[in-house]
Amino acid sequence: MSAKKTSLKDIAQRAGVSMALVSYVLNGKEKESRVGQEIAGKIKQIAEELHYQPNHLAKSLRSGKTHTIGLIIADISNPFFANIARVVEDEAKRNGYTVIIGSSDENAEKSRDLLNVLINRQVDGFIIVSSEDSAEQVRDLQEKNIPFVLLDRYFPDIQTDFVSTDHYKAAFNAGAHLVKNGYRRIGMIAYDSQLFHMQERIRGYVEALTGNNVPFQKHWLKQIRISTIEQGVKAAIDEMLAMEQPIDSIVFATYSLAISGLKYINELRLNVPTDLAIVSFGQAEAFDLYYCPITYVKQPIGLLGKTAVEFLMKKLKHPQAEPSQILMDAELIIRDSSKTKQLVHT
Amino acid sequence: MSAKKTSLKDIAQRAGVSMALVSYVLNGKEKESRVGQEIAGKIKQIAEELHYQPNHLAKSLRSGKTHTIGLIIADISNPFFANIARVVEDEAKRNGYTVIIGSSDENAEKSRDLLNVLINRQVDGFIIVSSEDSAEQVRDLQEKNIPFVLLDRYFPDIQTDFVSTDHYKAAFNAGAHLVKNGYRRIGMIAYDSQLFHMQERIRGYVEALTGNNVPFQKHWLKQIRISTIEQGVKAAIDEMLAMEQPIDSIVFATYSLAISGLKYINELRLNVPTDLAIVSFGQAEAFDLYYCPITYVKQPIGLLGKTAVEFLMKKLKHPQAEPSQILMDAELIIRDSSKTKQLVHT
Repeated sequence: MSAKKTSLKDIAQRAGVSMALVSYVLNGKEKESRVGQEIAGKIKQIAEELHYQPNHLAKSLRSGKTHTIGLIIADISNPFFANIARVVEDEAKRNGYTVIIGSSDENAEKSRDLLNVLINRQVDGFIIVSSEDSAEQVRDLQEKNIPFVLLDRYFPDIQTDFVSTDHYKAAFNAGAHLVKNGYRRIGMIAYDSQLFHMQERIRGYVEALTGNNVPFQKHWLKQIRISTIEQGVKAAIDEMLAMEQPIDSIVFATYSLAISGLKYINELRLNVPTDLAIVSFGQAEAFDLYYCPITYVKQPIGLLGKTAVEFLMKKLKHPQAEPSQILMDAELIIRDSSKTKQLVHT
Repeated sequence: MSAKKTSLKDIAQRAGVSMALVSYVLNGKEKESRVGQEIAGKIKQIAEELHYQPNHLAKSLRSGKTHTIGLIIADISNPFFANIARVVEDEAKRNGYTVIIGSSDENAEKSRDLLNVLINRQVDGFIIVSSEDSAEQVRDLQEKNIPFVLLDRYFPDIQTDFVSTDHYKAAFNAGAHLVKNGYRRIGMIAYDSQLFHMQERIRGYVEALTGNNVPFQKHWLKQIRISTIEQGVKAAIDEMLAMEQPIDSIVFATYSLAISGLKYINELRLNVPTDLAIVSFGQAEAFDLYYCPITYVKQPIGLLGKTAVEFLMKKLKHPQAEPSQILMDAELIIRDSSKTKQLVHT
């Protein structure tokens, strides 16, 4: 704070007693040290007058516990993360913890800044949704013995605690559902990212086709840079429609990609699902209120957030225990945007 | 952290030198204190081996600056706040500040917890979206001389720095627009809240009617408890439609109210705007992608967030300066959900 804080010394001077005595009284130890009631009262009154604020921080440095969790999310403006943050907060509160949130905006440098800021603020541990190129930061936390749990995204070659959706299986189910409903030229719009969850979503989509007798064609998969979503998605859809045999359906690998895509599909006055069937990752009111409700991969937000807090609590109690790891199933919520193709044409 | 941190003492013991010497070296003051190069190098190497982390906190306590802002938002799962958080982060970063976020979930107790947690973590100042019943907390911060700026919501009887939309004017324009477009039985669904911004939205709506020769009827205004939005909105709409002369249009005072309302309107298979015209506060992809794009009050999110950071920076430099206060205009984005009534019926 820029305002000068009242110190024990200020109170001691005003009361005409020693700092040790002030410390005893304000830490509730006056009985042990046999301070007179009158002088204890006087010290407390002066502390109040001067708006003295006990330095809980110094206390926590001694006890090694602050009962605070740092939550690093990848993008606060994505409703998936915002909703999971709310679950983490509620669950942490039930465990007597307060959550401090930082948003890395999918940026490794920002993520490192946030980790440092929060480490220096003595959080007990972290729950982290990792951003691209942040593997080094995760290794760093391990080296420093800082307890953490990775949420939603993890690194297959680093042994950590993590809670995640089974992104491969979720994407496989999304693709297989489109095949089952009669679609044969199925595109995917994903990020151009090395993050494992994105690779898994792409792998699931590809194998859903090849595993169901729909030979995957390389140009059906479009990978967009996260820094230029809008233009990227437009270009991808244009290409998908300009093919000699245009695609008949799209799997969007994230919420943001889907929103950009649906806006552009509206602009083109294409009809969902007649012109293009849609399945998307992510979940949001926008999918419910779209004229043709969107089929989407529903990740178990409540359970993901709850389990992340549970794993972190375990880690705080037993720092040396084996990592806890869990992959959870997503549920495909089937709606009109991926209706059976035959029915669409009647 | 629960893992034991390396202290200066640990390094001093390992190096066989005094703690003071270690402190000089690690704070870059070896020249002043004429420490030999060899011993300085040894101390730095040991510090690295032991993963020593300088206690920036102790440093900031001395300098009184941490270059960290605490941002308290009312509800992280509301896209308005999530988006404004992103603006505040970007703007703070440009000023060399990191933002730590806490979400109060519209709950005064949680808000107080967060303020305390962040004060104890030595943020330089706060940007706060106040929750109900939190006026006392604001007075408290003033008494403690903690710099802060109120964002979006302020208390008319407390003199503070604030940045807010002119909620009265925004609601007035929304109501007047419906009157102009031929609607004569205009309802509002708002929160049952004493917060000033909500009172202002209600006042603006009422005066838009009375000021435009549409006598306001008390039962057109429905106030919903924030803890039971879904049931509340359903009951409100049921009542509005069951009136002898049903309402022909609704102003939703917040995004969450609108989302619940639109879902229920879909459930009832009512047509927007033929059966019910809609204007809403808040902004989100859901409004764009609705089958009939929703007319909404667009608050100047970018400018609100940017100015809040600017005011806080000013406050940090000149704590004693007069409060900076600004009311910004919202823009009514007119779309099909509030189409002129005559046109609807042809």
